[in-house]
Amino acid sequence: MNARKPVSLNLNVRGLGQSATLEVKDKCRELRRLGRTVYDFGLGQSPFPVPTPLVDALRLAAPEKDYLPVMGLPALREAVADYHRRKDQIDAHADGVIVGPGSKELMFLLQLVYYGEIILTTPCWVTYWPQARILGRRFSLIHSTFESNWMLTAERLRDAIKRVEDDRRPRLLIMNYPKNPTGQTYSDRQLRDIAEVAREFDIIVLSDEIYGQLHFKGEHVSIARYYPEGTIVSSGLSKWCGAGGWRLGTFTFPRELDWLAEAMAAVASETYTSVCAPVQYAAIQGFHCGLEIEHYLCHVRRILARVAESCVSILSEAGIRLHEPVGGFYAYLDFSRLAPNLAERGILDGHRICDRLLEEAGVALLPGAVFGRSRGDLSARLAFVDFDGAGALAASERIPLDQELPTETLLPSCGHVLEGCRRIAEWLSRSK
Amino acid sequence: MNARKPVSLNLNVRGLGQSATLEVKDKCRELRRLGRTVYDFGLGQSPFPVPTPLVDALRLAAPEKDYLPVMGLPALREAVADYHRRKDQIDAHADGVIVGPGSKELMFLLQLVYYGEIILTTPCWVTYWPQARILGRRFSLIHSTFESNWMLTAERLRDAIKRVEDDRRPRLLIMNYPKNPTGQTYSDRQLRDIAEVAREFDIIVLSDEIYGQLHFKGEHVSIARYYPEGTIVSSGLSKWCGAGGWRLGTFTFPRELDWLAEAMAAVASETYTSVCAPVQYAAIQGFHCGLEIEHYLCHVRRILARVAESCVSILSEAGIRLHEPVGGFYAYLDFSRLAPNLAERGILDGHRICDRLLEEAGVALLPGAVFGRSRGDLSARLAFVDFDGAGALAASERIPLDQELPTETLLPSCGHVLEGCRRIAEWLSRSK
Repeated sequence: MNARKPVSLNLNVRGLGQSATLEVKDKCRELRRLGRTVYDFGLGQSPFPVPTPLVDALRLAAPEKDYLPVMGLPALREAVADYHRRKDQIDAHADGVIVGPGSKELMFLLQLVYYGEIILTTPCWVTYWPQARILGRRFSLIHSTFESNWMLTAERLRDAIKRVEDDRRPRLLIMNYPKNPTGQTYSDRQLRDIAEVAREFDIIVLSDEIYGQLHFKGEHVSIARYYPEGTIVSSGLSKWCGAGGWRLGTFTFPRELDWLAEAMAAVASETYTSVCAPVQYAAIQGFHCGLEIEHYLCHVRRILARVAESCVSILSEAGIRLHEPVGGFYAYLDFSRLAPNLAERGILDGHRICDRLLEEAGVALLPGAVFGRSRGDLSARLAFVDFDGAGALAASERIPLDQELPTETLLPSCGHVLEGCRRIAEWLSRSK
Repeated sequence: MNARKPVSLNLNVRGLGQSATLEVKDKCRELRRLGRTVYDFGLGQSPFPVPTPLVDALRLAAPEKDYLPVMGLPALREAVADYHRRKDQIDAHADGVIVGPGSKELMFLLQLVYYGEIILTTPCWVTYWPQARILGRRFSLIHSTFESNWMLTAERLRDAIKRVEDDRRPRLLIMNYPKNPTGQTYSDRQLRDIAEVAREFDIIVLSDEIYGQLHFKGEHVSIARYYPEGTIVSSGLSKWCGAGGWRLGTFTFPRELDWLAEAMAAVASETYTSVCAPVQYAAIQGFHCGLEIEHYLCHVRRILARVAESCVSILSEAGIRLHEPVGGFYAYLDFSRLAPNLAERGILDGHRICDRLLEEAGVALLPGAVFGRSRGDLSARLAFVDFDGAGALAASERIPLDQELPTETLLPSCGHVLEGCRRIAEWLSRSK
């Protein structure tokens, strides 16, 4: 920082670093440069290539140069609505769809235009509350437990609302499932119960379902089924289509929340304007989700499920408490049973676990604190995606989908992830 | 707006409509649907196709799927810095470059992270002060005059600063040249004088040079030449590369403003994350600006200059005061000499001029008020880009660049614009 002139910064922004996921990516890059073997379980990026029909569609649309409508290309908005109708059996309509440069940007605009309290359940994705902080929004955290699978329960939600005298204040509940950072999701019963509380207190729900298509059994259910009038469904191409770098996310609003969608469109017209035109044309293919993409998805799910299972088996044997992921890229590791051993080695919180693991074993995890847990929390997120996705897909495609996928088939492409888990186990078994 | 539930919106956002340029685009589309002939001089979008080397590069980069670094692909940042060094003879360095999804988004983030007053010169681009309003930032307008070519002068800037008791407050001056909405630019002398005032009062300058390459004579000069330590140069692909819909803008910071660039990167990492990867790879070609693109630019400039000249000739003859554009897409029309005639027809402000012109002559302009002028101002912006850019390029390429481009050559592709100007003249000559 240069001292020649006084720095004049918004206080909400001062001291804000880059997001934790990006920071750990840089650290891993640096260690690799020094010749170290690194197991980068920090950043949650899909390891799979973008499906061919999307890449072909992007090539075809390359000359598209017009500013598209703020809320998105009409044909894409229709495709997104149709996708949610088919996949989620919800009554989505094209007029309620907003297309943005990533769902993260849309979440930021939502927090900007909405005036109310934001409710989050920890451990939660690293970006929700820094956005609230940048905007000076009030947010409250509900801390979930290992016993509730790290998920919100209707009772905890009701308690949190009743604890405040002003139980009618405007509130936005952000839910995310299959969940980053835990790989867990809600049961039908749980969604119905949460929907009931949300309806009772007129809470708006932002339902971040970006990992919906990565439910390993393809059994994702949206809360919009049970609370259609108050739910905004967030989706995008980044996770299930492996196109994180393309930057396209979507919000789907019910008619009852037209006023919010309109306000977001007004701010979008003064900020990002519209999403990259060639990418919007290409994305239509993604949301149409034809046979080739469905086939791709089946393999992706099968591979992720098998990798997750293998990781969990190694890690639980090492004394880590964790729930087997049911979707997405993540497992959430609770080291609390190993606290005495760790304490002897001077490791008293999640940050120290992660720092030492990276230094001493080359394994990058992200500590629970960046997901909203307290600093003393002995937990961390593992993103099991540091593998060769194209190779894994090719291997999986050689085994018919109705057969089990043998772990050996994946070893050439995914062995690095299992090796990383064994490193964690070995590191834990060390004495001080 | 739905009345079932109370609307809970940020007061800075309530009542904010979509940006005026997008609104007039919708009106034109509606009139065309009804079978009317429309001269859409509202939205300022390049009529030219994206140069072939960029389209080819985008096709090639279509499979790129990774999240790129927040500040941009290193090779692109290097290309942008190099471009400014070559084109603007300024000491740009790659570490000072931020790539965003449009320079509009970057301006928004700058206004968000910077804490100070924003200074604008009217008439100015439609987005600067709505952004300030959304963010609750204080801004002040300096109204320029026809006599000063609608440009800021060093004297006016100094006066505006001295008028406030607190002349040392942190300030951000936004300059734009060649200017939207007037097509005018600064002389070398004017830039030096403004630079001197900026330096005296430690004002940060955001120099929006998105139309720099569209100076008709290729003689654009950046204020960064004279105030390098305090100038952020804004550029992008939207105007000179005709790729508005691709959404890629850049800011280039001097080392002295590292603290601002860092704060913007931190907020970018929590909002748009990074710009579309395939577009970043393709944009390298644009900023390398090889022979084929230089050739394209020469034709684009020659066509725009000729169209501007023809429009001005028709409009001045009709009694409109205007300066001949020296770059960009716009002419700024001052109807004040025609006030008596207009008043007789019940037309007392720029909004009424634009409404009636569209209704009665099918010509869409944007009134001065959306550019920050007072409501009573009898001025309007004309964007002379409602023509067939590909056709005009093909026609121009048949005439060697060292020859004059005859107006007749352009008539098949650009006749519609001249026809629209004649419609304005004819409409003005009507009695009530």
